[in-house]
Amino acid sequence: FISKLPDTGTSIFTVMSALASEHNAVNLGQGFPDFPMNQELIGLVEKAMKAGFNQYAPMQGYTPLRNILSEKIASLYSTAVDPDSQITITPGGTYAIYTALTTILRPGDEVIIFEPAYDSYIPNVVANGATPVLVNLQFPEYKIDWDEVEKKITSKTKMIMLNTPHNPTGAIISDNDIQRLRKIVSNTGIYILSDEVYEHLIFDNSKHCSILRYPDLLERSFVCFSFGKVYHCTGWKLGYIVSSPLLMKEFRKLHQFNCFSCHTPSQVALAQFLENTEAYTSLGTFLQKKRDYFINLMSSTRFDLLDSKGSYFICARYERISDESDKDFAVRITKEYGVATIPVSAFYRSGTDNKVIRFCFAKKEETLEQAIERLNKIN
Amino acid sequence: FISKLPDTGTSIFTVMSALASEHNAVNLGQGFPDFPMNQELIGLVEKAMKAGFNQYAPMQGYTPLRNILSEKIASLYSTAVDPDSQITITPGGTYAIYTALTTILRPGDEVIIFEPAYDSYIPNVVANGATPVLVNLQFPEYKIDWDEVEKKITSKTKMIMLNTPHNPTGAIISDNDIQRLRKIVSNTGIYILSDEVYEHLIFDNSKHCSILRYPDLLERSFVCFSFGKVYHCTGWKLGYIVSSPLLMKEFRKLHQFNCFSCHTPSQVALAQFLENTEAYTSLGTFLQKKRDYFINLMSSTRFDLLDSKGSYFICARYERISDESDKDFAVRITKEYGVATIPVSAFYRSGTDNKVIRFCFAKKEETLEQAIERLNKIN
Ligand SMILES: CSCCC(=O)C(=O)O
Ligand SMILES: CSCCC(=O)C(=O)O
Repeated sequence: FISKLPDTGTSIFTVMSALASEHNAVNLGQGFPDFPMNQELIGLVEKAMKAGFNQYAPMQGYTPLRNILSEKIASLYSTAVDPDSQITITPGGTYAIYTALTTILRPGDEVIIFEPAYDSYIPNVVANGATPVLVNLQFPEYKIDWDEVEKKITSKTKMIMLNTPHNPTGAIISDNDIQRLRKIVSNTGIYILSDEVYEHLIFDNSKHCSILRYPDLLERSFVCFSFGKVYHCTGWKLGYIVSSPLLMKEFRKLHQFNCFSCHTPSQVALAQFLENTEAYTSLGTFLQKKRDYFINLMSSTRFDLLDSKGSYFICARYERISDESDKDFAVRITKEYGVATIPVSAFYRSGTDNKVIRFCFAKKEETLEQAIERLNKIN
Repeated sequence: FISKLPDTGTSIFTVMSALASEHNAVNLGQGFPDFPMNQELIGLVEKAMKAGFNQYAPMQGYTPLRNILSEKIASLYSTAVDPDSQITITPGGTYAIYTALTTILRPGDEVIIFEPAYDSYIPNVVANGATPVLVNLQFPEYKIDWDEVEKKITSKTKMIMLNTPHNPTGAIISDNDIQRLRKIVSNTGIYILSDEVYEHLIFDNSKHCSILRYPDLLERSFVCFSFGKVYHCTGWKLGYIVSSPLLMKEFRKLHQFNCFSCHTPSQVALAQFLENTEAYTSLGTFLQKKRDYFINLMSSTRFDLLDSKGSYFICARYERISDESDKDFAVRITKEYGVATIPVSAFYRSGTDNKVIRFCFAKKEETLEQAIERLNKIN
């Protein structure tokens, strides 16, 4: 048997979560909240199930949900997106990314991927017979080196993958990045995949430079979103994807025969939930408080935090504590001190190890406190 | 842009459902129940959400659910299936089929597909660059012609796809079929994909010849199941797949980067729900009553029903009514008489038209009555 993904082992999230439970560690590794999600949204799902919304939703998604998303996009990003031909509901952001890449990629194609990179990107490219072309984000700000991108563009470059807010680093893309990107892709057939699953979770009044703001770029883009991440129900596995009508038509041909459609009661509930714009306007502030609480607590330790401008995550250097590799260090502090994190080198196929670990701060205050109490014991 | 699925249009289910609502027709087309699902199961989902089961389930699925499925398999099919290495929970049966085919198939491979065939099979094969090799089921019993299968086996044959109970016909596979299948695949590297999403929905005390009964065949098989179909919540998009540990390992490599995991609250609820074996032992009888009710009503019309031994479906000839093509006929009775069905020729890429339409009888009695009242008006 010739594996399509010979190099795929167990994901670092599963590995660290398993180690966490084995050692009864506080789990700041895998990116999921440990506080209760919005109970009103739960109530709306109950109502939908009891009202009988338990059969197939339309393949492209429940119409009122796509309509309200289109309204949201218009109001946040001033872009008109047609709900019928440009939005599809998906079983999560990861699925949207997979299906979009599979729609576009052919053997021999090259895809520009910035490292550190979310763990599904490279396998998705490889499973389609295409070649990842890796560009390191500039440490420690994790900015994009566009000159290097330009150097790596070839006639085979089929796609550039963006991720803002960025997992694992919390970096965000700026207008300047978009200007450089636009120059690079204009007059080429290069597609863009923009992973924006942490939309809304942006701090310090920064602007979310969603590709949705730029209709000229949206023409060649797939933009992926997650309800699970922003509404704190990662286990609901629901998201959506926005694109041009032409690309969406091709996406749906595959989606129709991959998952076909998504969980109906959640779609009905979210359509109602999103009528109140407060559902998402307060999310950034909510998570920012958690980030700031965490930063404050961490000042008592010898970790040096890097910047986080969005997402669930913040990275830290530990050079004042140890010169171990980040994997050894992350495993050791899970085992010896009972705090699980993710070594950022796991997000590099190039093997780069800047000796940085990632913390998920989307946790109850008491969870964060307990973690820092333990980290303070590191000598 | 070169489409991976150039021949894919809107699915016949979507087309007929749209026509049904346009003409206010009784919809016996797309396969979904119109009666309420089990309310206890809904209550268990509510309980799970309120108890906080809203974050990622394990990639392979919620452990207690996999455990209880393994127990069910042991008791129904006398086969030991390891829940950790042989069962994966999926967002629906369609997804399981797609991901299994994508795990196995390479460009140039051939896949034996029986027609009429569920509409995702051929596109799934084509999207992977492989070639569908079509074998017609023998009309009107829709039996497999194994001699023809043998003739079509080549050195490139990578897989045979089975479907029992069969959609759209309601035919089921027998022990004799399995003996022929075993002979054909033994000493070859041919894999089997068995679509058994209508498991449990079997009539007249027939035996469900699940591939799970045959451990020697399971070694080379993916067997796909659906919670949505059997528990009457097609919109929940949840199912599972069973295979050998070796094949499952490869399946999970893709699943991990396609959808990653499934709706947690439903998994928690189903794990509890399935502790009571009555959850599934009464399903066949329940649907059989609906089939029989429908058969009885249909005797007043000039349709000639074919046999249905399982599934939601029964097919009918209409030669005493019209000699139109089945597509024209299905469209006309939707428009003129207000009853939507599915033309069975839509399940043939070969273009075969036996002048047969498919009825979904998984409906309330009053729905079936209303449909027959309308069909009786055909002159
Ligand atoms: C899909 S499990 C990983 C969750 C996540 O997004 C992360 O921890 O980065
Ligand atoms: C996925 S929509 C089609 C539902 C179905 O299985 C059928 O009608 O055959």
